[in-house]
Amino acid sequence: MIRINAEILTVGTEILLGNIVNDNAAFLSRELANLGVAVYTHTSVGDNHPRLANALEHAFINADIVITTGGLGPTQDDITKTVAAEFFSRKLVTHEESFARIKERFAGGALPENVERNALVPEGAEILQNDHGSAPGICIESDGKILIMLPGPPHEMEPMFKNYASNFLRRKSDKIFLSRTLKIIGIGETAVESQLRDLVDAQTNPTIAPYATIGEVQLRITASAENEAEARNIIAPVADEIYKRLNPQVYGEDEAELAEIIVNKLKGKNLTLAVAESCTGGLVSSMLVEISGCSAVLRESFITYSNEAKTARLSVSPEILKTHGAVSPETAAAMAEGAAKSAGANIGLSITGIAGPDGGTPEKPVGLVYIGHFINGKTQTEKHNISGNRNVVRTRSAIRALDFLRRSL
Amino acid sequence: MIRINAEILTVGTEILLGNIVNDNAAFLSRELANLGVAVYTHTSVGDNHPRLANALEHAFINADIVITTGGLGPTQDDITKTVAAEFFSRKLVTHEESFARIKERFAGGALPENVERNALVPEGAEILQNDHGSAPGICIESDGKILIMLPGPPHEMEPMFKNYASNFLRRKSDKIFLSRTLKIIGIGETAVESQLRDLVDAQTNPTIAPYATIGEVQLRITASAENEAEARNIIAPVADEIYKRLNPQVYGEDEAELAEIIVNKLKGKNLTLAVAESCTGGLVSSMLVEISGCSAVLRESFITYSNEAKTARLSVSPEILKTHGAVSPETAAAMAEGAAKSAGANIGLSITGIAGPDGGTPEKPVGLVYIGHFINGKTQTEKHNISGNRNVVRTRSAIRALDFLRRSL
Repeated sequence: MIRINAEILTVGTEILLGNIVNDNAAFLSRELANLGVAVYTHTSVGDNHPRLANALEHAFINADIVITTGGLGPTQDDITKTVAAEFFSRKLVTHEESFARIKERFAGGALPENVERNALVPEGAEILQNDHGSAPGICIESDGKILIMLPGPPHEMEPMFKNYASNFLRRKSDKIFLSRTLKIIGIGETAVESQLRDLVDAQTNPTIAPYATIGEVQLRITASAENEAEARNIIAPVADEIYKRLNPQVYGEDEAELAEIIVNKLKGKNLTLAVAESCTGGLVSSMLVEISGCSAVLRESFITYSNEAKTARLSVSPEILKTHGAVSPETAAAMAEGAAKSAGANIGLSITGIAGPDGGTPEKPVGLVYIGHFINGKTQTEKHNISGNRNVVRTRSAIRALDFLRRSL
Repeated sequence: MIRINAEILTVGTEILLGNIVNDNAAFLSRELANLGVAVYTHTSVGDNHPRLANALEHAFINADIVITTGGLGPTQDDITKTVAAEFFSRKLVTHEESFARIKERFAGGALPENVERNALVPEGAEILQNDHGSAPGICIESDGKILIMLPGPPHEMEPMFKNYASNFLRRKSDKIFLSRTLKIIGIGETAVESQLRDLVDAQTNPTIAPYATIGEVQLRITASAENEAEARNIIAPVADEIYKRLNPQVYGEDEAELAEIIVNKLKGKNLTLAVAESCTGGLVSSMLVEISGCSAVLRESFITYSNEAKTARLSVSPEILKTHGAVSPETAAAMAEGAAKSAGANIGLSITGIAGPDGGTPEKPVGLVYIGHFINGKTQTEKHNISGNRNVVRTRSAIRALDFLRRSL
C-alpha cells in the first residue's frame, strides 16, 4: 500500500488573529484519516501573497497533497487562486459552468460587484461544484503534486469535501478505506474507552478512534482492504461487540442524527409530538425542526420560561409549582402531559432545569435538569446533573431529552 | 517601529487526527495580538522527532519568536524539550524548584512514574511556573531567537501565558496594538467592501480586515501606537466613517452579541417580549435564552408549525391563512400581534418562511421569509429572500428577525 500524505494549509488572517478557531483543519484531518491519507502538518497563514506562496512551496517539500481552505472569494483579500496559478505557472481563466451557476444563484437580483471573480480558476484544473456558495473548489494535479483548494466557510467547504473532493482523493489510493462511526449518548469518553480497553489495545485493522463532542461520543471503526465487501467484513464483528457492550447507548451510525431518528420513528408509527421547554429555550424544538419534514410530527412547542406560562399553556398546577418548584420531576411530568394534551399530540416531551450561571442553590445546583415524557397516557421522568457553562448545560440537556424519547419509542 | 513576529507551533498527534480543535493557537493569537506581536504562521505537527525538529528550524527562518504548546510531559511521546535542547545545543538538566513543586503536588501519595521528567529543562532557560499542572513552561533566548514552550492542556497553558509568559514578551515589544471590531448584519461581505473600498485601499495604520460568518460581517480595525490612548485616536475617525456609511447595519462592537443587545435594551426599557416562530422552530428563542438573565424579558415563545397552532395560540384568523397563506406578511403580522397579546407581553416578534428543501413554489420559493413585530400597538413586517440550505436559511432568518427587532427598539 502506498501511503499518501497531506498537509492542510488554512488561509485567512482571521485565523492568525484568533478570531476563529481552526475547525476546518480538524474536519479535514478526520476526513483524510478516513480516506487513509496521513496528515503530518497543519499550517495557517494570513491573506498575504508572499507568505502564502512561501507556505505552499514549503508544504510540497514533504507532502504529496496540499489541501487549502479559504481565500477563493472575489475580494482583494482572496489570493489563494492567484498564488496557486503562479506556483503551477498557469493562467486564471473563467470556468463558464461555475459562472452560470453563480448567475443562477443571484437570478432576479443584481450581481454583487466582482462576483464573476469567483469563477476564475487556473487553466486545466478539475472543478468541484459549490452547492452552498459561489466559489467552486479547484483540484490541480501536476508533476506528482496534488493541490485541492476549498472555500473557507465550513457550510460550503464540508459538503464540498464529502461530496466531491473525497471522490477525487479516493481515486489516488490503491487500497480502500472504509469506516463505520457508532454514535453514543449518555456515557462519557473515558467510560467508553475503559469499557472497550481490550478492543482498543488490540486494534490494528480495523482501528478504533473515539471522538467526543458536547453530549456525544463517536467511535470510528476504520478498515483498509482490497474492496468494500472485505472492509465491511473486517469491521462487522468489532462493531457487533461494541453494540453488545454499550447498548442502548449507541443511538445510530455515520450520518444518522438523533433528531432525524426520532422524526422518522414518529412518522413510521404515525405519532405526533409536542415539546415543552424551559431552560433549553427552544433548543430541542430547533434540533427537531432542523430535520426536513418534521412538520408531519411536531405539532407545536411551548417555551414556558415563567411559572405563569407553565400554568396557562401546559396546565401545570400552581400547587405543584409551589410545593416542588419549577425544577422538579413533578413539574417535568406535568409539563410533558400538558404539552401533549394542549397541542392534541400523542406524545409530550419536557425539559426543566437550571442552566446557570445564576439560580442555583445547594439543593438545586446549576446543571440540575429534569426531563419528562408523556407516552400512552403515562409520564416518566429522568434526573440529570450536567456540568459545564450555560450553553453546554443547555445543549447537553437538549440531547439528553431527545435521547430519553428515542429510548422510549 | 520594530515589529516582532511570532509563529505558533502546536505539537500533538491528536491535532493532526482532528480529535481536538486547535483552541491553543486561537487563544495565543488573540493574546499576542493584544501584546502587539504579529503572528504570521500557525503550524501543527505530531509527536514525531524529525518532523518537529524540521518544523522548529523552519519556523525560525521567518519568526523572531516561536511559541510551542504540548509535548512537555513525562511520556515517550513528549519530545518538545528534547528537540528544543538539540536545536539550541543545550543539555537537559533538572530544574530543582520545579521538581520541588511537583513533589509538593503529589505530597502524601506515590509519585507517578517518570514524573520527575517534567522538571527537566534545557540548561540556562528561564522557567515559567505551572500553577495547574506538573510541567513548567520554558523560555530560551539565544542569537536573537526566542522560544517559549508551554504545556498543551488549555487549563494549564492559558493561565501560564497570561500570568507569566506575557510579562516575558512585554519586555520585548516597544509598541502596542489595539483593535475594534464592528459587527454588521443585513449586508454581505462584498457589498461592505465595495462601500468601504477607498478606506480599505488607503489602509496602513489602522488596518481594516473584514470577516464573514453566516448572516454577519465583522470589520476589525487595528492600530499600532506608543500607547492605548494614541491607538484609540487612530482608530476613532475610521470607525466613525464606517458607522456613517453603514448605519444602521452596524449592530455592535467587539464581544457584543445581538441577542444580548436586545435583552439589555428590553431590560432597560422595562419591556417584555413574546416570540412566535414557524420555520426557525425555536432558534430565535434559543439565541435569546443563551443570554443569562433573559427570563426577565422573554415571557414566552410559541413554536407554531401548523396552521391550527397559529390559530389556537396566536389567534391568526383562518381567513388570513386561507387567503394569504402561512408564509405571507399578513400572517407574520398576525403572529407577532397574537404572540404579544396571548403572552401578555409588550412586544411580539414573529418569523414565518420556507426553509426548504421542500415546500417551495414559483411564487413562494425556498428562502422566502417574512418577519414581523408588534410594538406599541402597531405591526410591521419585512420580506427576505435568503439563500442557502435549510439550516443556513433558518440561521439567517433568526438573525434577521433579531436585527429587525433591534433596529426598531
